Amino acid sequence: MKKAVCLLSGGMDSAVATAIAKSQRYEIYALTFQYNQKNIQELDSAKKLVRHFKIREHKIFTIDLKQIGGSALTDDVDVPTGKSSEEIKEGKEIPITYVPARNTIFLGIALSYAEVVDADSIFIGANYLDSSGYPDCRLMYLKKFQELADLATKRAVEGNPIRIEYPLITMSKAEIVKKGIELKVPFELTWSCYKDGEKACGKCDSCVLRLNGFKEAGYEDPLGYEK
Amino acid sequence: MKKAVCLLSGGMDSAVATAIAKSQRYEIYALTFQYNQKNIQELDSAKKLVRHFKIREHKIFTIDLKQIGGSALTDDVDVPTGKSSEEIKEGKEIPITYVPARNTIFLGIALSYAEVVDADSIFIGANYLDSSGYPDCRLMYLKKFQELADLATKRAVEGNPIRIEYPLITMSKAEIVKKGIELKVPFELTWSCYKDGEKACGKCDSCVLRLNGFKEAGYEDPLGYEK
Repeated sequence: MKKAVCLLSGGMDSAVATAIAKSQRYEIYALTFQYNQKNIQELDSAKKLVRHFKIREHKIFTIDLKQIGGSALTDDVDVPTGKSSEEIKEGKEIPITYVPARNTIFLGIALSYAEVVDADSIFIGANYLDSSGYPDCRLMYLKKFQELADLATKRAVEGNPIRIEYPLITMSKAEIVKKGIELKVPFELTWSCYKDGEKACGKCDSCVLRLNGFKEAGYEDPLGYEK
Repeated sequence: MKKAVCLLSGGMDSAVATAIAKSQRYEIYALTFQYNQKNIQELDSAKKLVRHFKIREHKIFTIDLKQIGGSALTDDVDVPTGKSSEEIKEGKEIPITYVPARNTIFLGIALSYAEVVDADSIFIGANYLDSSGYPDCRLMYLKKFQELADLATKRAVEGNPIRIEYPLITMSKAEIVKKGIELKVPFELTWSCYKDGEKACGKCDSCVLRLNGFKEAGYEDPLGYEK
């Protein structure tokens, strides 16, 4: 059975990417990062998804990115709220929720994990169309990371490099919702909010993009939101 | 004043690379990884080098790579000893001291740190000629990482990507020794041994390559070795 490392944050995108890997009959090794982010609800969601998908191994990798900081997701500053999905997508500035070089770090660790468990592929739920415009969620970035992976490991030298799979990269949020519904992804178990309340706030950029995706897809988001 | 992040393990190569950055009048932000490696002497050496070079900031970044394992440098297996420098360099297999995707992870974190402290460059002491042949110490790997860095960060999007500098990449170990002596690098403060004894073992691949470099350069290694 082919093996895949799936980056599973606990958000809706990584849940759908993992469901796609499963539908392709990979044995899944889920990789979740506890990076001292504020929304620890995400981690809880990741654990629930692991149980739901009956995943072979769940590696919760601890790396404290607060040691470096530079992001509203790790530092003691508020995450922005109140923008519309259009304002988020058309924003000219990369928002303060950007975590410097996060995907380079996470994909590097995923590459290491994939090499150790002998996985052929790494699945990442990155997407760009309906997003905050992080530089390391772009197609050209991910293609370049594949080129790096083709040189970076012992396996690559032996002629068997690890594949980076990014099946959501050209999808809109609505298309991701539809794909997830097709694959029976339990969206009620996922967590996208940047904050760490009992219920998702519905107002931060991540909530707004998610809610808009469900609306455009014509489905109701099963997750509870603050009134 | 230009700023540079210098990856400073405490070994001789990173000490020389840091001295080169200093000779180019960079303000240095040293970055040392405590990754649960066996040779914690290295960390002590890094701290001594930071004092010697009067470095502006020293970030000791903790990341437990034992969470993933797959290397004799992190796992409970012996590091190989007793090979000649020729045997090490001509070895057809990448040795078990290879840490899967280590430089991808370390350079990813360096990129994050450089972006946060607004450094223009990252210096890494990677070299390949007289080495164990790790895939992520090759020139083509480092060039590819530069291409990735040109896409990966907010700074890159703003037209000001971070430069990856690898001044030792084409040098032999003897040339690195000579360069270090020219720049007055205190080699007695550095630590290259893979083991964690009072003195360096003189027999592991790293010690053998170092000793051979000093011999070929015509200098005596000021570091104490086990009899």
